[in-house]
Amino acid sequence: MTFTARQIAELLGGSVEGNDQASVNTFAKIEEGKPGALSFLANMKYEHHLYTTESSVVLVNRDFTPSAPVKATLVKVDNAYESVAKLLAIYESMQPKRSGIDPRAAVSEKAVIGEGCFIGAYAVVDDGAVIGRGTTILPHSYIGERVKIGEDCTINANVSVYHDCIVGNRCILHSGCVIGADGFGFAPTPNGYEKIAQIGIVTIEDDVEIGANTCVDRSTMGSTYVRRGVKLDNLVQIAHNCEVGSHTVMSAQVGVAGSTKIGEWCMFGGQVGVAGHINIGDKTLVGAQAGIAGSVKGNIAIQGTPAIPAKNFMRSSVIFKYLPDIKRSLDALTKDVEELKSKL
Amino acid sequence: MTFTARQIAELLGGSVEGNDQASVNTFAKIEEGKPGALSFLANMKYEHHLYTTESSVVLVNRDFTPSAPVKATLVKVDNAYESVAKLLAIYESMQPKRSGIDPRAAVSEKAVIGEGCFIGAYAVVDDGAVIGRGTTILPHSYIGERVKIGEDCTINANVSVYHDCIVGNRCILHSGCVIGADGFGFAPTPNGYEKIAQIGIVTIEDDVEIGANTCVDRSTMGSTYVRRGVKLDNLVQIAHNCEVGSHTVMSAQVGVAGSTKIGEWCMFGGQVGVAGHINIGDKTLVGAQAGIAGSVKGNIAIQGTPAIPAKNFMRSSVIFKYLPDIKRSLDALTKDVEELKSKL
Amino acid sequence: MTFTARQIAELLGGSVEGNDQASVNTFAKIEEGKPGALSFLANMKYEHHLYTTESSVVLVNRDFTPSAPVKATLVKVDNAYESVAKLLAIYESMQPKRSGIDPRAAVSEKAVIGEGCFIGAYAVVDDGAVIGRGTTILPHSYIGERVKIGEDCTINANVSVYHDCIVGNRCILHSGCVIGADGFGFAPTPNGYEKIAQIGIVTIEDDVEIGANTCVDRSTMGSTYVRRGVKLDNLVQIAHNCEVGSHTVMSAQVGVAGSTKIGEWCMFGGQVGVAGHINIGDKTLVGAQAGIAGSVKGNIAIQGTPAIPAKNFMRSSVIFKYLPDIKRSLDALTKDVEELKSKL
Repeated sequence: MTFTARQIAELLGGSVEGNDQASVNTFAKIEEGKPGALSFLANMKYEHHLYTTESSVVLVNRDFTPSAPVKATLVKVDNAYESVAKLLAIYESMQPKRSGIDPRAAVSEKAVIGEGCFIGAYAVVDDGAVIGRGTTILPHSYIGERVKIGEDCTINANVSVYHDCIVGNRCILHSGCVIGADGFGFAPTPNGYEKIAQIGIVTIEDDVEIGANTCVDRSTMGSTYVRRGVKLDNLVQIAHNCEVGSHTVMSAQVGVAGSTKIGEWCMFGGQVGVAGHINIGDKTLVGAQAGIAGSVKGNIAIQGTPAIPAKNFMRSSVIFKYLPDIKRSLDALTKDVEELKSKL
Repeated sequence: MTFTARQIAELLGGSVEGNDQASVNTFAKIEEGKPGALSFLANMKYEHHLYTTESSVVLVNRDFTPSAPVKATLVKVDNAYESVAKLLAIYESMQPKRSGIDPRAAVSEKAVIGEGCFIGAYAVVDDGAVIGRGTTILPHSYIGERVKIGEDCTINANVSVYHDCIVGNRCILHSGCVIGADGFGFAPTPNGYEKIAQIGIVTIEDDVEIGANTCVDRSTMGSTYVRRGVKLDNLVQIAHNCEVGSHTVMSAQVGVAGSTKIGEWCMFGGQVGVAGHINIGDKTLVGAQAGIAGSVKGNIAIQGTPAIPAKNFMRSSVIFKYLPDIKRSLDALTKDVEELKSKL
Repeated sequence: MTFTARQIAELLGGSVEGNDQASVNTFAKIEEGKPGALSFLANMKYEHHLYTTESSVVLVNRDFTPSAPVKATLVKVDNAYESVAKLLAIYESMQPKRSGIDPRAAVSEKAVIGEGCFIGAYAVVDDGAVIGRGTTILPHSYIGERVKIGEDCTINANVSVYHDCIVGNRCILHSGCVIGADGFGFAPTPNGYEKIAQIGIVTIEDDVEIGANTCVDRSTMGSTYVRRGVKLDNLVQIAHNCEVGSHTVMSAQVGVAGSTKIGEWCMFGGQVGVAGHINIGDKTLVGAQAGIAGSVKGNIAIQGTPAIPAKNFMRSSVIFKYLPDIKRSLDALTKDVEELKSKL
């Protein structure tokens, strides 16, 4: 499939600067551009690559004016990042899609499989599971007893969904993620810890994406909830009895302890830790590596361990490296004041 | 299965307040209560839900007195949390248990499988492995050559146990955990790092639970040890040559570097990091996200990076956010003192 | 296989102290020594075990002189650690190697498998994949469509390699690692986040080792790169569009956000976090749990969050626990100075 700069501009409602017959049939990062490729420039950190890129066409924001000659044809659009996202989605939707149940898949006779599903070799769909139409399950994924998975989901290879859990429509589960392992609950006794049975489930609502090797534990009773539109990156831990509110996004390696309730539209940087049994309000922005020990009202940016307003954290961090100087000044000053006092 | 409040009280040695014929057939969190469900109240943070819950029966501590009218029947017991754990265990023990070897499992002719085991579809038990009686192995788990697994274990789906490792009795391995991958050992050379062969094993003793996607690496020689009764949450990393002492519990995403020895009955909060080649004494309590750089004697609560006594950490953390003020005061004071000195 | 102290010394270019006919047939840690075992002493923290070990032969550095009688035969070599690595490599190379394709593996007719490969039960090699000669693929690994894997690689059990990714020669992928999951890219809209298709790949060059449950995400376009000789420990996260330079090593649970470029010969301690869209120069040494927010020139040791030169971090950390004392002194001093000022 080949497109000209003119066709791309029309598709995106943009305008062309340069040869409008320049044609492309693939994508490339601007710094790895090659003839026949389409690139984009959204983050101005990368502007210098524009003047050397070999790509044939580059998408830029409408208000951008090059500060040097550009060999590539420019297509100017309202939002270069959104436009490239649109083109990538079109590209991906054109890839062939597989369907049918591989004869080597182990689909229980007591499971119900919707129309147009693809189930790969050695995937296991256990007794009583229900898979919605158009869902793809790649090899080695395990869909436990009585699990319900919605329509048009993608379950990548080597995913584990424990018994009775629920996954909504249009969800993507990446390889190695584990949905519904037992919550970490034990009662101490003099002879060791006794396991507290975790008889609840996990409920993942519609339009959720769960990263590779991310874990969402089943509830002690009732359900752990991952609400509509949530996006979890790789290696995230959501403990039992938690609720992650709609449209909240968490970067890689975030960990949330048990029974914590997180609001809507929050953003978590990587490696953040959240204590158990607390509430995080809507639209809380959490800086990478923060440790949240207590409830947060929302509509605030926080950072640090324990987390404080992000501005305070940054100001204090700047001072942190001068602590030895501060200590030294303080000691000198103390001596000075003693001297002054003795003189008076 | 339906039980009355009276029957539950008798089972738990408790007393009934309210309608002793109120009956339940399931469990619910107190805030998600519904008719026919049993809930519990142990953490007083949740007390307000007691007065609105729809659950039919609520377990409470014997010394608890409601401060408002309660619709549910109360069953008063010595310890509500332990009592609900007991009921959950009974509930779970009543679930049907599967046994037998699925014809699609790949069990080596040179493996030995105990009586009453369940081995699911596409599980692989390799040459020379020994599986104790009553153990469950779910689909896609890989039990390597000469691995020994004890009795009454549960190996969930997609677990990997590398060759020669040993797992005790009554252990639970959650999905995606990896037991016995090579320790991270390399010798630097001018041309790159040379791998140091890791010919040791991992030994997991009795009554251990290993969380989803947790990794315990094999030893360079000898064994990495996870002692009796240890509970590791999800996404934990135990490096080669380590020893984790009996009844130590680690929350999610803890990482322990190589050759470190951890005592008994320690508790680690989430995302703690521990340096290599050190000793952590018995009953060390480690706050979430702490970084332990040197050996610790034990019987102490520590926190922070590098970790210090938890009380100190909390006191200093409170001051941290005032660092800019401290700097400013100090600068002003220095000026004042200079002035005073010049005046004298 | 049994070797005498004399034979070992000859193999390693070392000299014998003690009975040169002492013979060994296995390895043991020095603190777990037993008759017939070979141990080594490289880290002097463990010297006291030398005087009590039951091992028959101990490798030590040539310049080491015992400070008490030693029962074991000593073999003195230039570098005990390197020598034991050499012996372990010899030991491991003598283990039998499997080859052939298990009839229960699902190898596509459109895949190309090199000579001398071993492909275990239930491994899946999808359409268009190419596997180099001598490569081992253990059970339940998924090699996606059009993936290229080089020669003499080891793909352990339960590995997932998404479509179109490239793995070089002599690479080791540990269980549960995920190569090529979608990068974490979304465009916000008022109704939720829209997925940005990730149509790029992951390229892993020669001689790379990837730890258990580690994730390397595919690029939005182009490729995420893990260069020659890189060693990643377990549970590491490499986000989309990143490049990890040759011979860089990362300890467990490190996370690198998207589009960051890391130089050669860097060393990362455990649980380090690295922001997106930055550059880390060659030979940067990063202390455990550091958080790197901005670009780093290289040839420097850094630590802390946000990361500062390691020496500064350590000096300031020492002061951190005295912050309450500093605050108190400062307050007292302020009062003193006020008094002095009023007196003048």
